Amino acid sequence: MQNTLLWISYDGTAYSGFQIQANALAIQEELEKALAVIYKQPLRINGAGRTDAGVHARGQAANFLAPFKIDPDKLSYALNSLLPDAIVVTGAEKVAEDFHARFDAVGKKYSYTIDRAAQPQVLRRLYSWHLPDPLDLDALKAAAGLFVGEHDFAAFQSAGSSVTDTIRTLYKVEPRLDPSEQLLTICFEGSGFLYRMVRLITGTLIRVGKGTLEPEQVEAALKGMAKNAVGPTAPARGLCLERVIYRIQSG
Amino acid sequence: MQNTLLWISYDGTAYSGFQIQANALAIQEELEKALAVIYKQPLRINGAGRTDAGVHARGQAANFLAPFKIDPDKLSYALNSLLPDAIVVTGAEKVAEDFHARFDAVGKKYSYTIDRAAQPQVLRRLYSWHLPDPLDLDALKAAAGLFVGEHDFAAFQSAGSSVTDTIRTLYKVEPRLDPSEQLLTICFEGSGFLYRMVRLITGTLIRVGKGTLEPEQVEAALKGMAKNAVGPTAPARGLCLERVIYRIQSG
Repeated sequence: MQNTLLWISYDGTAYSGFQIQANALAIQEELEKALAVIYKQPLRINGAGRTDAGVHARGQAANFLAPFKIDPDKLSYALNSLLPDAIVVTGAEKVAEDFHARFDAVGKKYSYTIDRAAQPQVLRRLYSWHLPDPLDLDALKAAAGLFVGEHDFAAFQSAGSSVTDTIRTLYKVEPRLDPSEQLLTICFEGSGFLYRMVRLITGTLIRVGKGTLEPEQVEAALKGMAKNAVGPTAPARGLCLERVIYRIQSG
Repeated sequence: MQNTLLWISYDGTAYSGFQIQANALAIQEELEKALAVIYKQPLRINGAGRTDAGVHARGQAANFLAPFKIDPDKLSYALNSLLPDAIVVTGAEKVAEDFHARFDAVGKKYSYTIDRAAQPQVLRRLYSWHLPDPLDLDALKAAAGLFVGEHDFAAFQSAGSSVTDTIRTLYKVEPRLDPSEQLLTICFEGSGFLYRMVRLITGTLIRVGKGTLEPEQVEAALKGMAKNAVGPTAPARGLCLERVIYRIQSG
């Protein structure tokens, strides 16, 4: 069996998310349809993680086992010729037979983009949250720092998750303002993320930036003592899975 | 009568262009529909110029005469609440009664964006031409310089135009590479532009960059002596009307 890791970018606007579900079109489904054409049999891919409806990716990862070998460059080319424009395979590599895109991931990078222009920038609207309100960026940056490190993020997940271990380590929560583009981007890097954690942290940081939430309340929420300090969930369209991180990729 | 100038940005992906035409949905139509709701009567707008199907704008301009006054800020707000997401009025201002968005324009700025990544950047695909081929940027920049100044651009227009005076002055044709974003943007600024002129110049510059066209052939084309040195027409999706320039805006 040939195990292959795919790197996938997609515009999530028109999709129900990465993972296959009933009565909705998922990214995974488009990939498996294209693989079935190439390998002439149904194949199942393992995504590194779900992304929600409307969430984008520049560096999603997924692996699949195939009964015969295809040169990775040719495979990427063939997949891209079959996939819709909104999904692009940016790379394929051979990996060890026991490699699993989800279980072997040691971290992930996300970005959350906020459009700060007075009126929405139309060419950014599908990929950002339009938020022209005044923000105290220094307060927002200071609050972002509170999330870095190992914490129990139990309060920073949406209902609907079956995860029991809610301790994660964030290496980076970094808001950066690009004044020329009027975009505020928050970069996240961590060992793992709970369901909607990035969007909930973003919504929380925005409240701090607006001055309607104190940093002490954020600290309390991280200790599980202030659930009402969490959120709101920032809109899906501003979120992008930038990269899944593996210790060893090629096999 | 109250004459008002509107500044309009739009994502042209799903539209047939700015100007109203039969059997196709135009930006102008959406604007006039919204104005009719606000003023409770049909009103006609004068666009500063057409843009083709699929072409975008950050700074299109249009004026219209209305039988009564509405505060410009309130008008923008009302228009944006009625318009689809892909069209945003970024400003409105009162102008003199004889102001005309097309006849009073003294220049325009355009940008043309080329995606240089090996695989298309999905979140840029609607707003750029994906062109990963090797390009000689120095040659491309040198050729861009040939277009600056007053020239007869007769060879650099598509059929279907009724314009007879084809002399225009370009103040700027400036390719800029942003390596971090893997985007090549060509900025154009001029007194006016013929039908598809920006896309034809872009296509010509790309051929010079690829080494399949010599700068001498471009010079000959500008003297009307080498029609086969012109084009191809670069795809619409990479083009954006950045700004219409007026000497006096407010009235």
